[in-house]
Amino acid sequence: MRELPRAAVIVTGTEVLSGRVRDANGPWLADRLLELGVDHATTIVVGDRPQDMRAALEWLASQDLALVITSGGLGPTADDLTAEVVAELQGRPLVLDEALESRIAAKLEPLLARFPDLDLDAWREGTRKQALVPEGATVLEPVGTAPGLVVPGEPTVVVLPGPPGELQAMWRAAVQTPALQEAIAGAGTFTVRTLRMYGMPESEIAETLRVAERQGIDLGALEITTCLRRGEIEVVTRFSPEADDAYVALEEVIRERHAGTLFSDDGSTIDELVARALLDRGATIATAESCTGGLLAARLTERAGSSEYVLGGIVAYANSAKVHLAGVDPELITRHGAVSVEVAEALAFGALRRFDADVGVGITGVAGPGGGTEAKPVGFVCLSAAARDGRRLTRTVTLPGGRQDVRDRSTTVALHLVRRLLHGEGERALVAA
Amino acid sequence: MRELPRAAVIVTGTEVLSGRVRDANGPWLADRLLELGVDHATTIVVGDRPQDMRAALEWLASQDLALVITSGGLGPTADDLTAEVVAELQGRPLVLDEALESRIAAKLEPLLARFPDLDLDAWREGTRKQALVPEGATVLEPVGTAPGLVVPGEPTVVVLPGPPGELQAMWRAAVQTPALQEAIAGAGTFTVRTLRMYGMPESEIAETLRVAERQGIDLGALEITTCLRRGEIEVVTRFSPEADDAYVALEEVIRERHAGTLFSDDGSTIDELVARALLDRGATIATAESCTGGLLAARLTERAGSSEYVLGGIVAYANSAKVHLAGVDPELITRHGAVSVEVAEALAFGALRRFDADVGVGITGVAGPGGGTEAKPVGFVCLSAAARDGRRLTRTVTLPGGRQDVRDRSTTVALHLVRRLLHGEGERALVAA
Repeated sequence: MRELPRAAVIVTGTEVLSGRVRDANGPWLADRLLELGVDHATTIVVGDRPQDMRAALEWLASQDLALVITSGGLGPTADDLTAEVVAELQGRPLVLDEALESRIAAKLEPLLARFPDLDLDAWREGTRKQALVPEGATVLEPVGTAPGLVVPGEPTVVVLPGPPGELQAMWRAAVQTPALQEAIAGAGTFTVRTLRMYGMPESEIAETLRVAERQGIDLGALEITTCLRRGEIEVVTRFSPEADDAYVALEEVIRERHAGTLFSDDGSTIDELVARALLDRGATIATAESCTGGLLAARLTERAGSSEYVLGGIVAYANSAKVHLAGVDPELITRHGAVSVEVAEALAFGALRRFDADVGVGITGVAGPGGGTEAKPVGFVCLSAAARDGRRLTRTVTLPGGRQDVRDRSTTVALHLVRRLLHGEGERALVAA
Repeated sequence: MRELPRAAVIVTGTEVLSGRVRDANGPWLADRLLELGVDHATTIVVGDRPQDMRAALEWLASQDLALVITSGGLGPTADDLTAEVVAELQGRPLVLDEALESRIAAKLEPLLARFPDLDLDAWREGTRKQALVPEGATVLEPVGTAPGLVVPGEPTVVVLPGPPGELQAMWRAAVQTPALQEAIAGAGTFTVRTLRMYGMPESEIAETLRVAERQGIDLGALEITTCLRRGEIEVVTRFSPEADDAYVALEEVIRERHAGTLFSDDGSTIDELVARALLDRGATIATAESCTGGLLAARLTERAGSSEYVLGGIVAYANSAKVHLAGVDPELITRHGAVSVEVAEALAFGALRRFDADVGVGITGVAGPGGGTEAKPVGFVCLSAAARDGRRLTRTVTLPGGRQDVRDRSTTVALHLVRRLLHGEGERALVAA
């Protein structure tokens, strides 16, 4: 691959550095840099100490980078110092933008009503601090209350707030500014293609790449990243127009070798595919979950507009709830145990009937850390997706990892069952569950 | 705070930099540094490119650090270059440790049996590479197959493998080495205290710190971090024994000014406090959620052992589910709308009755991005917690942020209602909802 403009990300926040808060911005910005055709060199996390922020910025300024993006440190309190440090580094004095100050104040007014005892002086001081802009910088209008900045220079610094929702909206504005466009002028036109596979070990894709290489496909012209994410294998390839043929040849090899597991070739996630399949069919869905405790329903309703197809769900954590709420025959629990394919199917059909849905999903398993047995160890999960016409798909898996991994992976397994069911797979149950 | 030895962490791995794999090592090492009384300056993430690793190490070597810890890049393949780069930086030639080579080979033997087609030359080359040790370094015995290193110098570099299980075990060995003990000789004994508040804006705590300073409390002796997390304010303070009095005085000021909002002074989260309150009372809980779509039930069941007190929940996303599953009177929906305090209370009592629980929680709101009106904008959420004796606490909030923020924050508001209800607050409903 030819040389690209390079960029770095600085994430500020003692709570991120200490691991108390997980950083969502570094990964999100990494994806945006990939799309822009900019090379992402490094992500640096520093605490809320201006000298550490300054040291990181100074180092990056010496590293031949086109762009540095900072996240966080734009709040109203005195330890939020990003704008000040960037201004100093670029040698630009801070100037009060009075119109911006008024706009921030207007945004905060509803808070004043909610907290009548608020200290007004502290409040005004905070607002003024947030309206100080380095000379020559472009202001990014605040989505929350903190404005962002694009400060031109070498490197150009894009200053964004920490809350992910604000950062994401304001990044989109930053990309439109002439200052940022100029900074990344050397970026190429890149295509990013994502293939997703489900139901195979990661080593298989490594072997496929070796096969492709032996067939003479020029993998050196492609930047290929493969990774295992939430139980799926993702192959992300970035390439310039000259490498189009190499990519087409690679994708063909992958399609051939992984026909049964490749489920997405246009970047769609399994969540999107399930949502689309439900919408296309005008079908509704309901869940009955035990070990996942509502995570599948929460995942299905993450998407705006999901009320079009999600009717709801039952979290049947206690056995009594499985019986009384989801309608599971207590005999099944006694005979096969609460974690069994029989109970998973009964939960799926129970959800379907109770909500009068087209598709029902049942999940029951051992999330751990306790409760595992030799026959049903931690990670042992039974899942079933059932259709109104009586078809159902049922799977038993033993998932790796801790409690959180098992619960999260289970929702992925469930979504793949739903997708297959919606595509017509599944046997009719001989006996109504 | 007096000066402490400072440390930095370098995490290597393109999949971590790109955000496709979440880094567990940076946060884990941050906690270990805190315990050691070492100041954690920064965490740097770089991809699998030796020049980026080298640039990061060179920068850190110029930063007056006592310690640098690297994670990853110790595998047998040619792009795993951490040991080589560290040796070069410290000016120590790499020497083959033949005994170590044999021990690594012995660990790998079971693999040979499983993969009879393995390329033996490549395999021997990899083993030899992993047994190359910078002169004067202490070898950390491999837990997996990759050995770690403690390389003395300024800074002393601790080289650890990427897999978290291996890294954690080998860090414990590293701490015992004279080389590491010498590097952090100036580390002190520190206390870390965490206060959590709920129901006030972040600017209030900034003002409280100013008040404390005006009262002559030596805040310079304390390292104070404040942050807003999931709708709560967290104040984390680290201090050495000499600063005990200053901390006690600060905590007193905070207690006085924020008596109504301070809910945790021992590091407990609201999740832990609710779980403990339920367990202490032998009480059970059930939920009926609309806009949060199961997130509250999922949050309640995140904790191992939650089956002791969580019976389950209903995700009543569609109005029909509110009526048929949660027992909400359809009249209430017609008269007040699905998002109303009346429906929130009916959901809470419905959950309580359907699951025969001691506590029921109801949530209904506008998560957005669509569906907002002037009277009930996006972020408008009604929540209620109800007790078996008829008491209930009901709140209406307008939460900031996007769909995900509104949903997540709602679960925090709900947990605080439950905590207050379990502590005896709440009026008896005049009319059974």
